[in-house]
Amino acid sequence: MTTIDPTLLPFFQPQGIVLVGASADPTKLGFGVARNLLQSDYKGAIHFVNPKGGVLLSRPLHPQIADVPPPVDLAFLLIPAPFVPQALRECGQKGIRAAIIAAGGFRETGATGASLEDECLRIARDFEMRLMGPNCIGMLDTHLPFDATFLPPPGPTSGAVAFISHSGAICAAVVDWARGQGFGLSRLVSLGNQLDVCETDVLPAIAADPYTRVVTMYLEGVTDGRRFLQVAQSVTRHKPVLALKVGRFAGGQQAVASHTGALAGADAAFDAAFRRAGIIRAQTNEELFDWARALAWSPLPHGPRVAVLTNAGGPGVTAVDAIESSGLQLATLQPETEAQLQAVLPPAASVHNPVDMLAGASPEQYADCLRLLLADEGVDSVLLILPPPPMYSAGGVAKAIIPTIYAATKPVLVTLMGERLIQEAMEHFRAARAPEYRFPERTVAALAVLTQYAAYVQQLATSPIMLPDVQPERAQRVLSSAHEAGWLPPTAVTELLTAYGIPCPASHLAQHADEAAALARQIGFPVVLKLVAEGITHKSDVGGVRLGLVDETAVQAAFTDMLTKVPQLEPEAVIAGVLVQQMIPAGQEVIVGVTCDPQFGSLVMFGSGGVEVEGLGDVAFALAPLTEADVEYLLNQTWAGRKLAGFRHLPPADRTAVRQTLIRLGQLAADFPQLAEIEINPLLVLPEGQGVWAVDARARVGE
Amino acid sequence: MTTIDPTLLPFFQPQGIVLVGASADPTKLGFGVARNLLQSDYKGAIHFVNPKGGVLLSRPLHPQIADVPPPVDLAFLLIPAPFVPQALRECGQKGIRAAIIAAGGFRETGATGASLEDECLRIARDFEMRLMGPNCIGMLDTHLPFDATFLPPPGPTSGAVAFISHSGAICAAVVDWARGQGFGLSRLVSLGNQLDVCETDVLPAIAADPYTRVVTMYLEGVTDGRRFLQVAQSVTRHKPVLALKVGRFAGGQQAVASHTGALAGADAAFDAAFRRAGIIRAQTNEELFDWARALAWSPLPHGPRVAVLTNAGGPGVTAVDAIESSGLQLATLQPETEAQLQAVLPPAASVHNPVDMLAGASPEQYADCLRLLLADEGVDSVLLILPPPPMYSAGGVAKAIIPTIYAATKPVLVTLMGERLIQEAMEHFRAARAPEYRFPERTVAALAVLTQYAAYVQQLATSPIMLPDVQPERAQRVLSSAHEAGWLPPTAVTELLTAYGIPCPASHLAQHADEAAALARQIGFPVVLKLVAEGITHKSDVGGVRLGLVDETAVQAAFTDMLTKVPQLEPEAVIAGVLVQQMIPAGQEVIVGVTCDPQFGSLVMFGSGGVEVEGLGDVAFALAPLTEADVEYLLNQTWAGRKLAGFRHLPPADRTAVRQTLIRLGQLAADFPQLAEIEINPLLVLPEGQGVWAVDARARVGE
Repeated sequence: MTTIDPTLLPFFQPQGIVLVGASADPTKLGFGVARNLLQSDYKGAIHFVNPKGGVLLSRPLHPQIADVPPPVDLAFLLIPAPFVPQALRECGQKGIRAAIIAAGGFRETGATGASLEDECLRIARDFEMRLMGPNCIGMLDTHLPFDATFLPPPGPTSGAVAFISHSGAICAAVVDWARGQGFGLSRLVSLGNQLDVCETDVLPAIAADPYTRVVTMYLEGVTDGRRFLQVAQSVTRHKPVLALKVGRFAGGQQAVASHTGALAGADAAFDAAFRRAGIIRAQTNEELFDWARALAWSPLPHGPRVAVLTNAGGPGVTAVDAIESSGLQLATLQPETEAQLQAVLPPAASVHNPVDMLAGASPEQYADCLRLLLADEGVDSVLLILPPPPMYSAGGVAKAIIPTIYAATKPVLVTLMGERLIQEAMEHFRAARAPEYRFPERTVAALAVLTQYAAYVQQLATSPIMLPDVQPERAQRVLSSAHEAGWLPPTAVTELLTAYGIPCPASHLAQHADEAAALARQIGFPVVLKLVAEGITHKSDVGGVRLGLVDETAVQAAFTDMLTKVPQLEPEAVIAGVLVQQMIPAGQEVIVGVTCDPQFGSLVMFGSGGVEVEGLGDVAFALAPLTEADVEYLLNQTWAGRKLAGFRHLPPADRTAVRQTLIRLGQLAADFPQLAEIEINPLLVLPEGQGVWAVDARARVGE
Repeated sequence: MTTIDPTLLPFFQPQGIVLVGASADPTKLGFGVARNLLQSDYKGAIHFVNPKGGVLLSRPLHPQIADVPPPVDLAFLLIPAPFVPQALRECGQKGIRAAIIAAGGFRETGATGASLEDECLRIARDFEMRLMGPNCIGMLDTHLPFDATFLPPPGPTSGAVAFISHSGAICAAVVDWARGQGFGLSRLVSLGNQLDVCETDVLPAIAADPYTRVVTMYLEGVTDGRRFLQVAQSVTRHKPVLALKVGRFAGGQQAVASHTGALAGADAAFDAAFRRAGIIRAQTNEELFDWARALAWSPLPHGPRVAVLTNAGGPGVTAVDAIESSGLQLATLQPETEAQLQAVLPPAASVHNPVDMLAGASPEQYADCLRLLLADEGVDSVLLILPPPPMYSAGGVAKAIIPTIYAATKPVLVTLMGERLIQEAMEHFRAARAPEYRFPERTVAALAVLTQYAAYVQQLATSPIMLPDVQPERAQRVLSSAHEAGWLPPTAVTELLTAYGIPCPASHLAQHADEAAALARQIGFPVVLKLVAEGITHKSDVGGVRLGLVDETAVQAAFTDMLTKVPQLEPEAVIAGVLVQQMIPAGQEVIVGVTCDPQFGSLVMFGSGGVEVEGLGDVAFALAPLTEADVEYLLNQTWAGRKLAGFRHLPPADRTAVRQTLIRLGQLAADFPQLAEIEINPLLVLPEGQGVWAVDARARVGE
């Protein structure tokens, strides 16, 4: 577990807090924070400041920050933006080392607000203060306890789910949803504009809280992708982290010139980063808290095998559909289990999984069957379906099964179907911390997340692979000679890839037809000619590639023809010459590449190359440098990767060489972040044991 | 609107009902039905029968059905299965023409139960009776009113959503969800084993109910796919139908030998059928009722342009994400609208869509902005986001905006975020029939369905296309000469396709190398040789296809080589000869095919052929014969279809000829349902104006 940054301690364990801008007017937020602080039962000192003086909630209103008696190590500034810098100075002079700035009117409103922020940051640096906000609603901890927010009462009940948010507005709804869905919160932090303290700073501090069993995050982005990744990785090994990342379509995507860049889209980097960091990504608010409840309350399953226990066929079928489509498995019950189920159920009941006890199932039958299923070694988790039973109350069933759920070391998730007829049962389940959902599909989704997280923590942590036999100095020489941003000449690209052990065909640049013929003779026939020119992205589209040239005459003819025709089609192109290249035997063609994300750095791409499948987007991304798990993901996630194993008449291709190439490319990208794009298209993959060839490659140095 | 089958009228407008098996014991279902009938305020006659006689709920218990006084036209049989046939006979003799059989213990329990069902059906036929069930919970109508179910009280509130279900167990949960989610039901029908009356029978009867504004269905399958389709099509033009089809993974798929069959999967036919029928398919119970509320309560939008009105940025971003990914569009507001919004909002508010009024927005500002957005001609619908506001109550906002929502001719869907703090607002919205959801994503999904249904009803209904220039007699002759089920000989396949105007290359079967050479000379060089053999699905995998043979010598050599090597690789294969075929110029390759679904008949498939993309499943299906909309769907849904329009260096291909081929193939399949599989792989598509060629085709006659 990571340790907490000591400069953040005043936020999480404040000895005393001063509320600057406390107000006796109950319609003001300055009253709301005062009320919440007092009502939260915070045990530290609470001080109020208001220049008018007077009394608020039986406490004095000090006219100035300087007047506040010790202890005080945290300030909550609820004053208009223009007054914040002066208040910060006074806090600093008072020795206060942490402040929450609630007001809006900073960077989000324009240049004046931004310079106000800059001024605040300078003051904070001078006094070694940490700042939360501005433009936030504060933070709370239900266990300390401590509520420094202006959320409308009642505050959240105490629980095991923490919430970190870039949006203040969503916090009130989250507190309210939590109450409505019967789970409590441990800590809630609203980050606002993140002038100083950001999501990456608070994540380990929140996760270190012993009362927090799961961390949920509402993210609009991250401040420093790689640091976030590193911090999150250290957290997720011990505690599950769920994130909802919004703004999927809002990202301003930079202009891109390669397939790799175009295929990456705005969201591929977040997907890759969350996967690497072990963060579970929810797509909706509902998923975020459905899953959080399960992770907070349930033991983790040892595998994907689910037993379904129901008193009705229809919802059982729905659950089985959802299980099959979510990657879980329907458990195969042991014969003894089925025999024991048969003994407690009527003859017409189905004792195969899904176990259908029929509509007449009693609370005792529910409890007996649940115990039998949990005892089956082939069962990793149980999904229990409970519509309002025709002859018994759902509450009675809940009471009968809760002791078994409570004692179980395997997760039991309940689908409690209905609404008002199941209120009593719902209250029983919630009081017992047994996750319940209204619909089978949502229950299965939560169970799938539990299973996924369990698999993640069981895996050994893997570090990125760094091969020793690469030549960074040689690559550095190539890049040093590239004086400006832009595409590298083909010979430089070949040199770069060769330095990292990626095989490139023998290749030389020719300026004349005769020179081309001579180079071809030197390389050995057959050869390929490839135009080298600025301003042409896809050479083959304009006749800039000629394959299978078998003798000198053919080379000369192709050279002349190319240099006649291409300028007609692409008058703007600046032709640097023609590459004469070794002709490679046939194999499977894939595309591998590198693209650069502004937040997470280099991403390695793998997928199907070629016009035939470009429209299908059969590509996957992982962060450079790659781990073993990343390499497997790239190969298994794509059809391009799966068919390397052989398919119909395609013989098995050299997957080992592809793995090596991906690792080497990721290492090259990580060692030289100035490489904004690399694309090998195609990477030709020969049959097993025969290797790969980077037949055509491009690389661009960024600004 | 379709008319109601008059034999079903006693179910939907009964003059008098007799409950056979009424019980004075409050723990019995026979008491429950009696109670529900009386409490439902049903205005017709209610009679109880129990051999013991006596009194139940102040009414006499008649010992026999024969004793019941008129009027009585519907019987509810709540007696054990073995007694049902005799009771049916007595009902028949009494002149009762409709019966609901509630008991289980029939076909679902085995052979004895099945023969009991057969007996019931014989009796029903003899007396011209219609039967609902067995193994069902009955039916209810909240407007007639009439409740002939044994659902636990309270019954559903009266509303505009009808529910038809193959599962009885889910009905209780649905009634309860409806109450919890604040919508009422119009009618509910539980179909049970569907011995006689099935989902297709009741759908038009339910839809004809003036109180029903939307029909929801919980389907485990359909009884007769084509009839269901026809009936559903006539309904969906007038009233929306939503269906949840379960058992997606449970379908026992028949063994298949072609790509087309393998790619179809268990669920493609339902997708194609629902699309053709205009039925909106929900994937979860939650979607079913989320969408039903919107369709029941909202006007239909005229287009996809959504305005978002929020008091908080975070939920606004979430909504925009969901809008973009669901195929809706963010409306562009007119300058006047933005100016008017600016006039009622603070300067820091955002008057561009999504309109962010900021956290301080008052009920009046909500109402003013909503009116302005609804008045904008560029806005088709409004998504209003309402988290618990910090300074006002959500209930106050609801009261302020409801008159505007109520008067609007455009849909306004509300995201009411939170749970307990928004209860008052929720009750207001529900009372006003304004659809509200807890989360932005669910609101957007409902809005997308409203928009999709609006587009569907605005479309003109299209009939399948039937071209006149086909030769069914010629195809019939081919099929008549195929005496048994199985794959047709290649020449028969060519004849079949040619009869329907699908171009096949000139092609003849040769038995000897010399004969092949002679045929090749006659066809003209270059030619292709293709092995014809039983037991080989993919000829090219075993060297059974030789391309580009330029003279007689090459043909002879290839023939001899093929007949030497193939038997070594496929010793089981029975070789019938070798086809000598005209060689076709290069073009784009696609796969077209026909497969047969047991419920919906022939499906036409279109997609990417070839090993390169087989693993990607780039295929789409539509029901044969095809409509214009189906053809467009097949071409637009697949990458294979999209790239026919031209892509990078691929020139535009002859899409018109592909359309023709799809239509002709659909027509052939529809005319000859005995064709269990057809596969043209590849269909070679030449550049624009140059047509297509069915280069290789197979067809199988079913059992």
